Amino acid sequence: MTKVIIIGSGNVATHLIKAFYKSSKVQVIQLFNRSATSTEGIPVTNSYDELLNADLYIIAVSDDSISEVSHKLPFKGRLVVHTSGSVALDELAPENRRGVFYPLQSFSRNKDISFAGIPLCIEAGNDEDRKLLEYVAHSISRKVYRVNSEQRRSLHLAAVFVNNFVNHLYAIGNDICKKNDLSFDLLKPLIAETAEKIENMSPAEAQTGPAKRHDETTVQKHLDQLNTYPTYKKIYETLTKSIQKH
Amino acid sequence: MTKVIIIGSGNVATHLIKAFYKSSKVQVIQLFNRSATSTEGIPVTNSYDELLNADLYIIAVSDDSISEVSHKLPFKGRLVVHTSGSVALDELAPENRRGVFYPLQSFSRNKDISFAGIPLCIEAGNDEDRKLLEYVAHSISRKVYRVNSEQRRSLHLAAVFVNNFVNHLYAIGNDICKKNDLSFDLLKPLIAETAEKIENMSPAEAQTGPAKRHDETTVQKHLDQLNTYPTYKKIYETLTKSIQKH
Repeated sequence: MTKVIIIGSGNVATHLIKAFYKSSKVQVIQLFNRSATSTEGIPVTNSYDELLNADLYIIAVSDDSISEVSHKLPFKGRLVVHTSGSVALDELAPENRRGVFYPLQSFSRNKDISFAGIPLCIEAGNDEDRKLLEYVAHSISRKVYRVNSEQRRSLHLAAVFVNNFVNHLYAIGNDICKKNDLSFDLLKPLIAETAEKIENMSPAEAQTGPAKRHDETTVQKHLDQLNTYPTYKKIYETLTKSIQKH
Repeated sequence: MTKVIIIGSGNVATHLIKAFYKSSKVQVIQLFNRSATSTEGIPVTNSYDELLNADLYIIAVSDDSISEVSHKLPFKGRLVVHTSGSVALDELAPENRRGVFYPLQSFSRNKDISFAGIPLCIEAGNDEDRKLLEYVAHSISRKVYRVNSEQRRSLHLAAVFVNNFVNHLYAIGNDICKKNDLSFDLLKPLIAETAEKIENMSPAEAQTGPAKRHDETTVQKHLDQLNTYPTYKKIYETLTKSIQKH
């Protein structure tokens, strides 16, 4: 069994612990978090000096704390990875062998999710470490990709567009419904279908709507409807222009 | 059996014909389209004078042609509806009883979709017609809503945000992947999860990301990455501001 220690207690840490708990190839032998809270009965510590010997240390803490935590580890030459989309490999302390183990998904504390379909983006400083990370990744997911720091930075940016920004457009749809005494439920089948369509069609092929059709009459009607929402009007104009340029 | 005639040959017409074909309460007795192309063996005509007597005429043509088609109908006092989200009820010729039968979904010619879950937005000029439209709507869908012209206009606008604009953000995600030799498949589980989350959570609760966290360091990094894509940079700035204002 490959021995892993997970450092952190956020959403990624929690979901990783649950996923590895079901794996027969990887064992989480210890957790590290400030409040020394155990999960699944795994031994826990909040003292760096009590960290056990393991094949892999996964730092799953907020982006801002990754470097600091990596510098506090009281050992050298071991394999230490972080799980962030936007932090470079070399922000980890150089005393240890470094890597990245980035699950490309949005985790919520109270929503279970199967790791099997989550893309795991792997980066390592040498072939042997990369193989170990791939082995560990495959123990919980079918989708393992080699992604370097530069690519990962781009992926993280792309994820902001298709997750954070898309969700904000849902929020705008919700606002428009509320203002007009309409249930947001009316929009949910359309939201589901829009997301489903790009499983088998490129987003460019799937594009429809007044902007794409250059239907200026409808665009103008919509802009007039948005006169009392200047921020949403700006978004409408910016996205319409971008669709027409695409 | 309630007798219906469908006018038009686009995506909405095609999907409606298929849906009614399975219904035991509603029968499509005739189709009207310019090329006189039959579907499901239903009698077809391309001459207004040959239109049969029916309980309901559904005009499923492009927004621009609805008024014109409604004026060409050679009869009076019958129930005539259109299927558009953005056309008002009174754009239909006043010689007939008027209504709207708006399926809130995005239809693709080659992608089958079950009507059962599609919200049907109904509007009519009087109670009796509204009841007939609700009866017809319930014969193909579980989700029937009374929506007036003003509300429908707003719904159509909201749909542009959660469908057309969301799809464009997918296209941007795809572009960023391509430029960095990454498969768009990497983003698909995140896209699916983002859409699924709002089934049981409001979009405001589901919002995450650097904009929401006011993580200005990451926002600035992302803007720098977008220096060579001025249009996407503008979108990033506009949506980030809107999330922070929300």
